Amino acid sequence: MPRRQGYRLPKIPEMTVRRLSVYTRCLLQLEEDGVKTVSSQELAERFNLNSAQVRKDLAYFGEFGVRGIGYYVSGLKAELQRILGLDREWTVALVGFGNLGSALFHYKGFGRQGFRIAAIFDDDPAKVGRDVLGVPIFPTSELAREAKARGIQIGIVAVPAEGAQAVTDRLVAAGIKAILNFAPTRIRVPRDVRLKDVDLSIELETLSFYLAKSSR
Amino acid sequence: MPRRQGYRLPKIPEMTVRRLSVYTRCLLQLEEDGVKTVSSQELAERFNLNSAQVRKDLAYFGEFGVRGIGYYVSGLKAELQRILGLDREWTVALVGFGNLGSALFHYKGFGRQGFRIAAIFDDDPAKVGRDVLGVPIFPTSELAREAKARGIQIGIVAVPAEGAQAVTDRLVAAGIKAILNFAPTRIRVPRDVRLKDVDLSIELETLSFYLAKSSR
Repeated sequence: MPRRQGYRLPKIPEMTVRRLSVYTRCLLQLEEDGVKTVSSQELAERFNLNSAQVRKDLAYFGEFGVRGIGYYVSGLKAELQRILGLDREWTVALVGFGNLGSALFHYKGFGRQGFRIAAIFDDDPAKVGRDVLGVPIFPTSELAREAKARGIQIGIVAVPAEGAQAVTDRLVAAGIKAILNFAPTRIRVPRDVRLKDVDLSIELETLSFYLAKSSR
Repeated sequence: MPRRQGYRLPKIPEMTVRRLSVYTRCLLQLEEDGVKTVSSQELAERFNLNSAQVRKDLAYFGEFGVRGIGYYVSGLKAELQRILGLDREWTVALVGFGNLGSALFHYKGFGRQGFRIAAIFDDDPAKVGRDVLGVPIFPTSELAREAKARGIQIGIVAVPAEGAQAVTDRLVAAGIKAILNFAPTRIRVPRDVRLKDVDLSIELETLSFYLAKSSR
């Protein structure tokens, strides 16, 4: 078993957390392929990672490697899932049920990782009162009440930019401490609320970087 | 002017490229606020970045800082935009016009950064032949022809998982060298094609990490 060092360690960089998600996916793949142990070098080569970075990222959380063996695939995967909070279910509210909200609702990856959308909020009268695959759609005015009643832990903001701050304020007022924002705008939250902005054009920019580089 | 060091340097980590996009957004914000110069420390404090990381990332591309002054906001922004290929327009094909495709098509961030969707491909007979804000929708069987005719440089895959490999093969056959995949599945491309998978659940996992941590 790896030695636990607890979490009173230096602040963990967000990029490290992001990479833990990537490592977990790689380990899942190895597990499916029947691989029992893997070294950081093998992991890096197979998935195009940096082996020194892998070791450094994991070192924040303990010593997972075994000398002469490497990492036990299933054991490390389970540890990382626990660290990432993927060993439990999280209850999510989706605010905004337009094209993006609808796409997110049907996105298979969320449920697979334990994120369960338990309520949808939208002010379109044609949508309010309906339910989608058993999940009810409420007006945003009922956000505080329904979020509390349903034990919502994470809010996803998928409304147009101009409405994003108002629904965020409602999520915050409902006591939600983690918000994922897809609206292409800057929103403000109190210090004790963790906000993560998703900027889809960043993904395109990593591609244009390489295209621009090869055309120089 | 910063000293150019050219691009025959060590391989640039993808996370560095990703952070260049973030820095560019921060600099745009500073420029809007009328800030002329900024030190790496000020940049880090204001936007919650790591100043050593900022310096290290920028050092891959040249020496942008001026002793005693820091960085010239507009100059550095323009340099980063050039490095990221954001000083020109990129022609994009969107494959799949369901909820996600439609959300991506209307996503304001793409156009703002110079990514222009010039053609949409979808096999739904109710969609083929229509056009959306002047952009035509073609069947995927016409992908190779239309992509060539329109000089498509980047393909976005927004079809369900089971159709993703087939449309990717068509994009590759059309000579497209950069593909952004939103389908929650693993797709394969030849070595000379750059593939970027967008996994939306990774964003949720950075939130569950912090929620799990604070509940321990």
